[in-house]
Amino acid sequence: MEGDATRVMIGVNESTIKGYPHASISSRGAFEWTLHKIVRSNTSGFKLLFLHVQVPDEDGFDDMDSIYASPDDFKSMNLRDKARGIHLLEYFVNRCHEVGVQCEAWIKKGDPKEVICHEVKRVRPDLLVVGSRGLGPFQRVFVGTVSEFCVKHVECPVITIKRSADEAPQDPVDD
Amino acid sequence: MEGDATRVMIGVNESTIKGYPHASISSRGAFEWTLHKIVRSNTSGFKLLFLHVQVPDEDGFDDMDSIYASPDDFKSMNLRDKARGIHLLEYFVNRCHEVGVQCEAWIKKGDPKEVICHEVKRVRPDLLVVGSRGLGPFQRVFVGTVSEFCVKHVECPVITIKRSADEAPQDPVDD
Repeated sequence: MEGDATRVMIGVNESTIKGYPHASISSRGAFEWTLHKIVRSNTSGFKLLFLHVQVPDEDGFDDMDSIYASPDDFKSMNLRDKARGIHLLEYFVNRCHEVGVQCEAWIKKGDPKEVICHEVKRVRPDLLVVGSRGLGPFQRVFVGTVSEFCVKHVECPVITIKRSADEAPQDPVDD
Repeated sequence: MEGDATRVMIGVNESTIKGYPHASISSRGAFEWTLHKIVRSNTSGFKLLFLHVQVPDEDGFDDMDSIYASPDDFKSMNLRDKARGIHLLEYFVNRCHEVGVQCEAWIKKGDPKEVICHEVKRVRPDLLVVGSRGLGPFQRVFVGTVSEFCVKHVECPVITIKRSADEAPQDPVDD
């Protein structure tokens, strides 16, 4: 039953609640769940593909107190964004290396749900894994959920991993 | 990384398009996909749990031309329904036996989406797999989709496997 490795694309994002860049609770949860429940000991049977989508607007929010005085200010901002994205992916690639499972990771800019769907079309994984904050219907109206959009629009099977209740931050819209 | 086997619950149903009981295209697709892409050669790492929900009303439709004259007519109808459900599960259990993966299978009556959610709460699988007919938004309004309901209401991760376009029957609402 072993042919080509099963290619699992995982959408990962940064935490919105804590300081320096690290993975959100829901994307770390989705990743660890995939390792423990799907990959298990069969590390050669799977290849993990990490996609991080940077949201231009959201990044802008962190810069509300910044003053832009020269083109270089924007250049350094771009460099810093890039560094944060790379730092995030490094975490996942390192974990894969520890466990011994093949992986690839890359960064795109744009609206996460649109970009994820576009990348699934391009890369054609066997399975897409997305973490979800597990928001209720009321919160969903305002926040929208990437996972719901992907389940509807993506051709390949999609697995939605909800953040467990005991891991939720104070404001469930966060992270 | 091998602890207890990953318990995968798969919702299975009968085809609505052809004659004698057999699995629907979407539930066979979901099952085979799970074997090939998730279980792979790691057969001891997984246990498959098949849940078949029989819909009382739907079964009634087949009996539009029947005449009920005695209590025994209903008894034999119940027996026949039971036989059809068992026949369906036999297909999946046999396939698991061939492949060498542990399994369990059982039948419940009721509304599939409600029963599946209830059984997930009771059985606590690691993952729920549901096939989907991949209906468009217009068809969904009238037919409703079990998979969408489960993604929203079930605690465990849910994977939705769409029927591939080349396997769709003439009327996509079927099967």
